[in-house]
Amino acid sequence: MEAPAELEPIAREQIDAAAERIAGRTRRTPVIDLERGALGVDCRLSLKLELHQVSGCFKWRGTLNAMLSAEIPEAGVVAASGGNFALAVALAAEQLGVRAAIFVPASSSPAKLDRLRATSAELVVGGDFYDDALEASRRRAEETGALFLHAFDQPEVVAGQGTCGRELAQQRPELETVLVPTGGAGLIGGVAGWYRDQARLVSVESERTNSLHAALAAGEPVRVEVGGLAADALGAAVVGRHGFEAARRWVDESVLVSDEEIRAAQLELWRHTRVACEPAAATPLAALRAGAYRPARGERVGLILSGGNVDPAQLG
Amino acid sequence: MEAPAELEPIAREQIDAAAERIAGRTRRTPVIDLERGALGVDCRLSLKLELHQVSGCFKWRGTLNAMLSAEIPEAGVVAASGGNFALAVALAAEQLGVRAAIFVPASSSPAKLDRLRATSAELVVGGDFYDDALEASRRRAEETGALFLHAFDQPEVVAGQGTCGRELAQQRPELETVLVPTGGAGLIGGVAGWYRDQARLVSVESERTNSLHAALAAGEPVRVEVGGLAADALGAAVVGRHGFEAARRWVDESVLVSDEEIRAAQLELWRHTRVACEPAAATPLAALRAGAYRPARGERVGLILSGGNVDPAQLG
Repeated sequence: MEAPAELEPIAREQIDAAAERIAGRTRRTPVIDLERGALGVDCRLSLKLELHQVSGCFKWRGTLNAMLSAEIPEAGVVAASGGNFALAVALAAEQLGVRAAIFVPASSSPAKLDRLRATSAELVVGGDFYDDALEASRRRAEETGALFLHAFDQPEVVAGQGTCGRELAQQRPELETVLVPTGGAGLIGGVAGWYRDQARLVSVESERTNSLHAALAAGEPVRVEVGGLAADALGAAVVGRHGFEAARRWVDESVLVSDEEIRAAQLELWRHTRVACEPAAATPLAALRAGAYRPARGERVGLILSGGNVDPAQLG
Repeated sequence: MEAPAELEPIAREQIDAAAERIAGRTRRTPVIDLERGALGVDCRLSLKLELHQVSGCFKWRGTLNAMLSAEIPEAGVVAASGGNFALAVALAAEQLGVRAAIFVPASSSPAKLDRLRATSAELVVGGDFYDDALEASRRRAEETGALFLHAFDQPEVVAGQGTCGRELAQQRPELETVLVPTGGAGLIGGVAGWYRDQARLVSVESERTNSLHAALAAGEPVRVEVGGLAADALGAAVVGRHGFEAARRWVDESVLVSDEEIRAAQLELWRHTRVACEPAAATPLAALRAGAYRPARGERVGLILSGGNVDPAQLG
């Protein structure tokens, strides 16, 4: 176990290096600026459409960075995930021509399992929660010598996710505030590692997947019960150390939203922007609409719409 | 009836004026550049995500330009449409605080009718095809004095659609070729009016909604039978005069794709980019994948993804 005192948050140089490493295989996801009053919010909204990323989620960035940073053994890679990281690993393994074994809890969404089955990765579905799959994946790595990849608590992964923040800062340097969905804190860790004090950073979790919120209150990562609508993407029982270290330095507010608020925001995004996103990606808009974060009138606010691996029938 | 000889295609100055008129109420829709080999196509692909426009379709641009260019009488506006233009008129009327009566054929998609019912416009569903709704709307305008708006064959509408091409040319000046979905030729008319000879322009229609293709072959607009998957958006029996005049000057190729090819392209876009588009918007990718248009290796090709008013369950 690493001693927390030794842990430094991701440096900007690591994020620069990740951006260079993954360029060419990664999409510079676009940003759309909405007209005043759009989506029922009275501020100047910019949406970072990360759901159009390869694999349908930001996880592609960190995964690719981790895999391109390592020597991958003959036994390939193993990973555990609620779905999005698994899909990123499976697709990256196909691109790089290496073997992948993916451990997924039974709580993963059917939309994500379907996409995984369409890849060439070995898929092992078992256990109820992410932690069960994580344990099984660690055992496999020990048995076979395959490279173990962590979904969020690994410096290369956090640095890769940071390229999403770096890109947004380049695309919209005028943003005053950025709202970020948080699960294991890989994304917020990377985004905070880039922005630092250059914008107000708001972490948004669901009430039932609140690992960062609980950790910030406790002063250290603590175990939480996870469940609800966004659990397949945000359901980390313990927040990652690397993300936590960045978040406690640079995240200005950590807010929670209910499943009902997430669902309403997800439908609002579909109706008024034709963005088909998964529940986790709708949490930033939910925080604005529910007043969990209250921007000033006219404030320039960016929302990271983190993923789109949703069963589209749920948007009807 | 206007004499064809008097008709000039839309001038760039008209498109500039339209862009200024609709700014602030219209989204600058983003462009995403895909990695090499994405979507099974061996060229450099850029997608203009016009489906994220207000109302879920490019029609917003021309509609808003037409309504902001006119004095709108107390009786309001009337319009006929397969769905997307109707929705744009209904939403614009709400924003501008004027009355709207919308005539829609029974062949419109349920997704579009549902969105229309959620507006404050008067909705009249009747007749099997667009032409039936068009006739009914003209009669209403004569009876009430309301302003008649044409879905595609009106200079202000074509100039407004031209702002989509103008924007793309600003966003990606390096594009060598642009593929545009064509129905009544409002969009291709505006896009060609902007680009002129500055890029290779390819008009894409479905085999069963081929009004521009038939008109170019005949040397003048002719009536065609319409049907199939994309008819609710592209099903104009006769191409618009204004669009035709621009197309015959500046469109380099006019190609057709089958409903099966459109459907496959629509699903491919959902699977690999999480773009949820309607069949009409998938026609440019269908043309590339089916070889109806064959780019050179490495050619820089832009596709206009024109609309997203689709029942999301159809993407499953």
